[in-house]
Amino acid sequence: MSGVKGVTVAGFESIADALEALGEADPTYNAHVCAVHEGETVVDLIVGDDLAADSLISVFSCSKGIAALSLSLLLGSGDLDPDAPVARYWPEFAAAGKDAVTVRTALSHQAGLIGVAGGFTIEDVVEHHDLAARLAAASPLWAPGAAHGYHGVTIGTIMAELVERITGTSLQTFFRANVTDAIGADFHFGVPEADQARIVEVLPPKADEEQPDEPEPMSLVGLAFGGGLMPPMRELVRHPLVVANGPVGFGGFGNARSMAHLYAQGLGDGLFPVEALRRMSQIQANGTDLVLGIETRFGLVFQVPDARLDYGSPWAFGHDGAGGAIGFADPARDLAFGYTSRVPTPAGAHQPGLELARKVRACLRSARRSRQAGHESRSIPRVALSPMENR
Amino acid sequence: MSGVKGVTVAGFESIADALEALGEADPTYNAHVCAVHEGETVVDLIVGDDLAADSLISVFSCSKGIAALSLSLLLGSGDLDPDAPVARYWPEFAAAGKDAVTVRTALSHQAGLIGVAGGFTIEDVVEHHDLAARLAAASPLWAPGAAHGYHGVTIGTIMAELVERITGTSLQTFFRANVTDAIGADFHFGVPEADQARIVEVLPPKADEEQPDEPEPMSLVGLAFGGGLMPPMRELVRHPLVVANGPVGFGGFGNARSMAHLYAQGLGDGLFPVEALRRMSQIQANGTDLVLGIETRFGLVFQVPDARLDYGSPWAFGHDGAGGAIGFADPARDLAFGYTSRVPTPAGAHQPGLELARKVRACLRSARRSRQAGHESRSIPRVALSPMENR
Amino acid sequence: MSGVKGVTVAGFESIADALEALGEADPTYNAHVCAVHEGETVVDLIVGDDLAADSLISVFSCSKGIAALSLSLLLGSGDLDPDAPVARYWPEFAAAGKDAVTVRTALSHQAGLIGVAGGFTIEDVVEHHDLAARLAAASPLWAPGAAHGYHGVTIGTIMAELVERITGTSLQTFFRANVTDAIGADFHFGVPEADQARIVEVLPPKADEEQPDEPEPMSLVGLAFGGGLMPPMRELVRHPLVVANGPVGFGGFGNARSMAHLYAQGLGDGLFPVEALRRMSQIQANGTDLVLGIETRFGLVFQVPDARLDYGSPWAFGHDGAGGAIGFADPARDLAFGYTSRVPTPAGAHQPGLELARKVRACLRSARRSRQAGHESRSIPRVALSPMENR
Repeated sequence: MSGVKGVTVAGFESIADALEALGEADPTYNAHVCAVHEGETVVDLIVGDDLAADSLISVFSCSKGIAALSLSLLLGSGDLDPDAPVARYWPEFAAAGKDAVTVRTALSHQAGLIGVAGGFTIEDVVEHHDLAARLAAASPLWAPGAAHGYHGVTIGTIMAELVERITGTSLQTFFRANVTDAIGADFHFGVPEADQARIVEVLPPKADEEQPDEPEPMSLVGLAFGGGLMPPMRELVRHPLVVANGPVGFGGFGNARSMAHLYAQGLGDGLFPVEALRRMSQIQANGTDLVLGIETRFGLVFQVPDARLDYGSPWAFGHDGAGGAIGFADPARDLAFGYTSRVPTPAGAHQPGLELARKVRACLRSARRSRQAGHESRSIPRVALSPMENR
Repeated sequence: MSGVKGVTVAGFESIADALEALGEADPTYNAHVCAVHEGETVVDLIVGDDLAADSLISVFSCSKGIAALSLSLLLGSGDLDPDAPVARYWPEFAAAGKDAVTVRTALSHQAGLIGVAGGFTIEDVVEHHDLAARLAAASPLWAPGAAHGYHGVTIGTIMAELVERITGTSLQTFFRANVTDAIGADFHFGVPEADQARIVEVLPPKADEEQPDEPEPMSLVGLAFGGGLMPPMRELVRHPLVVANGPVGFGGFGNARSMAHLYAQGLGDGLFPVEALRRMSQIQANGTDLVLGIETRFGLVFQVPDARLDYGSPWAFGHDGAGGAIGFADPARDLAFGYTSRVPTPAGAHQPGLELARKVRACLRSARRSRQAGHESRSIPRVALSPMENR
Repeated sequence: MSGVKGVTVAGFESIADALEALGEADPTYNAHVCAVHEGETVVDLIVGDDLAADSLISVFSCSKGIAALSLSLLLGSGDLDPDAPVARYWPEFAAAGKDAVTVRTALSHQAGLIGVAGGFTIEDVVEHHDLAARLAAASPLWAPGAAHGYHGVTIGTIMAELVERITGTSLQTFFRANVTDAIGADFHFGVPEADQARIVEVLPPKADEEQPDEPEPMSLVGLAFGGGLMPPMRELVRHPLVVANGPVGFGGFGNARSMAHLYAQGLGDGLFPVEALRRMSQIQANGTDLVLGIETRFGLVFQVPDARLDYGSPWAFGHDGAGGAIGFADPARDLAFGYTSRVPTPAGAHQPGLELARKVRACLRSARRSRQAGHESRSIPRVALSPMENR
C-alpha cells in the first residue's frame, strides 16, 4: 500500500484500504485517521504527502469539543454546575433578564446570544473580555430555551469566560495545565511559535467547486459569524492572532491522533470524568437550528449523533469542524476517533471521515463476532503497514 | 356482497362496498372494521375467510391506547396526577436527577428513557420489575421535556409500574377487573389458554415487499426496541410469553369490535371519565420524533391526530400498531372506531384502515345533512349484509 | 414612468422601476409601497389605476402587527407584563388549569386556545366578550408552551380582552385615542362610515387560479378559523360588521403608507417605546406551526423574519396578511415598510411585496456605500416621479 503510512492492528486493515482508495481517487487528498479502542490505538494512518504524524492542522469547530473535554473536569469537581445560573459564576450575565439562564441552556446553543449588535472582529474574539461583556449585557435574540441555534463563535467566548471566572486562569492556560501537560497530547489552543512550522493548512476550495454564499451580515447566521466584520472561515483560522492565541470556539490546532487520544481519555480510567461527560452528552437541543437552518443536535457543547452526523451510539459525544475534521468518543463501543484532512468542507464533517468512522464500527463488529466465535484471541498484534514517523 | 360479513346501519353501506373492493383487489386481504356512533354500532364488518367476529389478533402498539383507557380511571379518581412527579408513586424513579420528571412528561414520550444500556429481552419486558428498576436508575438519554421520542416498549413498562405502585395489582389484573370484567370486551393483556385457539396471526410480509432494515442496535431506535436483544416485531407478538402475559406496550390481543367498543366507553356516560380523557388527549409533544425520525404527536400515551395519522378532530385520541391496526375515539363526532387486519404494516396504521375511518366520517357528514334536511329519522334500522357470528 | 405615481428620493429609483415592471406584466396589478428610512419617506409609490394615496384596503392579518404596536405602549408603561400570568389581568382565564399561562405564552401563539368547541361566528368575533369568556373557560388543545400554532382569529380576541381589562376601554378605542389621534395615521380598526367610500377591495382570485381547499371544520386549522361557522377570508373582511368594527385579528383597514408610518414610530424617538418592541420582537416560538402546518416564527404577536418571511434583520418585527400585504420595522436598518395590493394571496405576504422589501434593502446598502465613499451627502432631495395626491 504505497500511499498509506502508519499502523493498524489486525482486523482494521480495511481502513487502510479505504484510505488508499480515497488517495488514489484524488491526488490532492491528504488525511489522517486515528482510532483508539479499549485503550489501544487500532488505527493511525495517513494518506498524502503533505501530512506527517506531527503535522498540526486547524480543526475549526472540532475545537469546541476538545475544549468541552476540559470543561468536564470542572463538572466533575463540582466547580461548574450545569443547572446553576450562568450569573452564579459571571454576575454581569444577569443583565437584560438573563438572571435565570442556566449553564445548561448557555452551553447547548439555546441562550440566543449568537452575536452582538454591531458585530465583532477577530480581535474581539481573541481578546475576549470585551465581547464577553457585550454578551453579558445583551438581550437574547430568542427567549432562552425556546429554541436553539449554533453559537458558532460565541459559545467559545462563553466557555472561556466561565472557565476564567471559575479558575482564575484563561481556558487556554487551564487546558494546557490540566490536559495537554497532563497527558502530552499534541493539541494547542495557541500554537507556540516553535511549533508553527508544523502547521499544514486546509487547501483552498477547488476552482470549479461551488462555494456557499457569504451570509447576509444582518441575518442570524451572519451575526453568529461576526455580523460582517470577520473574514471567511478559511482566512480566519490562518490569521496570526488565531494561530497564536487559539480562541476556543474554532482556533484549536491538532491532528487526528491527538484528537483521538484526547477523546480516549473520556472513556473510563482516563483524565476526564465519565459521569460528567455522560451528563454533557445528554441531548439538550434537537431540531432545526435557528442559525444554520439545518437539523442539529447538541448536548453541552458537544454535537451528539444525529442523522447528518451519524457517528455513534446515543452515548457518543464529539464535534465536527468546517474544515471537515471530526473527533469523538463513543463509550458504548469504548472507541475514540479523530479525522483531519486538507480538504475544505465548509458544511462540517467531511463525508470520507464519517465513512471511515462507519468502517471502524464495522471492524469492531466483525472483531466481536470473531471473538464470540472463538476464532481469535483478544490480544491482536500491531501490524506496521509502512513507516510513519511517530512523535 | 359475497365477501363481506356483518352489519351496517343505513347510511354506512359505502363502508361495506369499500371493504369488499379491498378484498377483491387482494385475495389475502382479511380485515375487520367496527364503528360506534352515539352508542350504536353503525359498522361491524369483516372481509376475508380467515377472520371471524371472535377472532383475536395482535394489535401491536394499539395496546398502548387500550391500556391508556384504563389509566383514565386513575386520573379520574385522582389516584394518578399527571402533574405529579413520577417519583411520588415510584420513589426509585427519582435517581439520576429525575426527581422532578412528571407523569405528564413520562407518559408523553418525553422522558428520554427509551431503553437501557445493555438492552432488554422479551423476558425482561414480560416480567417487568427488573426493567422498571433499571429505567428508574437510568440517566435519561435526553433532558426530560427537551424532546420526545417513541418509548415503543418502555412506555408500557412505565405504565405497568405506575399502576402497580398505585393499585397494588398488575396493570393486566387492573385492566381485567376494572375494564373487561366490567363491560365484557373481548380484549386481553394475556390471552387465557382456552382463548388462544381464537388467535389469528398477522401474515408474514409478501416475498416481493421490501422490508425495513433492522435498526442498528446501538441507535436510539435500536435501543427503544431492545438494543438488539429482542426479535423482530412480528416474532415478538407471537412469542408464547407475550401471548400469555400481554406486556402492555405491545402485547394486547383483541379485534376491531372490542377496540371500538372500548373506545366508545370513553365518549360520555361510559366506563371511562371523559374529563380525564380530555386531559390525556391534549397535545404534549409534537414534531420530529427522536426515535422514529418522523413527525409524531402525543398526548398522554395516546397518539393524537396529525398529518400522518389523520384520524379525527383535535379532541380525538387513539393509537395505531405496527400490524396496521388502529383504534380511536373522537368525542367531537361521538365516534369510536376499530380496525384490525392480517396485512403486515410495520410503519403503523394500515392505509386502508385510515381510509375506512375517513369514509365513516363522510357517512356521518351525509347523515347529518340528511337529518338537517329532514329526510330521515334519527333511528335507523340495522341491516344485516350477510351473516357474521356474533360473540 | 407612465404607470407609477408617487415619490422616491435619490437612490431608490429602482423601486419605481420594479413596480412599473410589475404593473406592465399584469394590467390588473395594483399596489402601494412605502418605505421610511431614518425618519424620511424614501419611497411612496402606487401602481395601478384602482389605488390612490388615500385608498383604504383590508390588510387582513397585518392588523395583528399594527394592534401589537399599540400593546407596546402598555408594555412600556408597565401596565402589561409579558411574564405575568394572563389571569392577573383577566381572572377568569385561570380556569381549566390555565392559571400559570403567561402573557408571553398567550401572545406568541403557544397557549393552545385557537378556537372553541362548537366554533365561532363573525358576530362572536366582533362582539368579542362572549368568545373571550369561552376561551377563558376552555381547556387548551395543547399543553401551553409545548407547541405553537397560529391563533389566526383568537389572538385578536385575547389582545382585545387584555387591553380592555387593563385600560377599561376597547382596543379599538385605545388605538384611536393613543395612536391614530396622536400621529394621524390613516389606519382604522372600524372604518367610520364617512371613510368607507375610500375602501378598495382585494380582487377575487382569477378564474384559472387554483384555490386552497376550505379547511376541514374539525381540524386545528378549521377550528382556528371558526370551526366552519365563518365565511372564507375574502368574504370575511368585506362583511359590514368587520368593516365597521375592526376586530383586531384581521379587521384593520389602511394602506402601505399608514403601515410604514406606524411602524416608523417604533424606530426610536417615536410614539412606541423601542425597548418594549425589542422585547416583543424576541423569538418566542419557532418551527412547524400546529395550525398552519408550515414553519412560522413569532415574537409577541409579531411575526419575526424567517426563511419564508425573509423581510429583515433578527431585530425586525412585523406581520403579513392573507391579502398579500405586509408591514414591518427593522431597527437594525432604521427602516419601516408597508406594502398593500389588490392581488389575492391567501398564503400570506405577496411575493412582489417581499421582493420590493429586498430591493429597498439593496438601495440602503448602495446608499451606505456611496456615503462611505463620499459620493453623496446625507440630505437627498425628494424627486417627484409623477403626481400622487397626498392626503
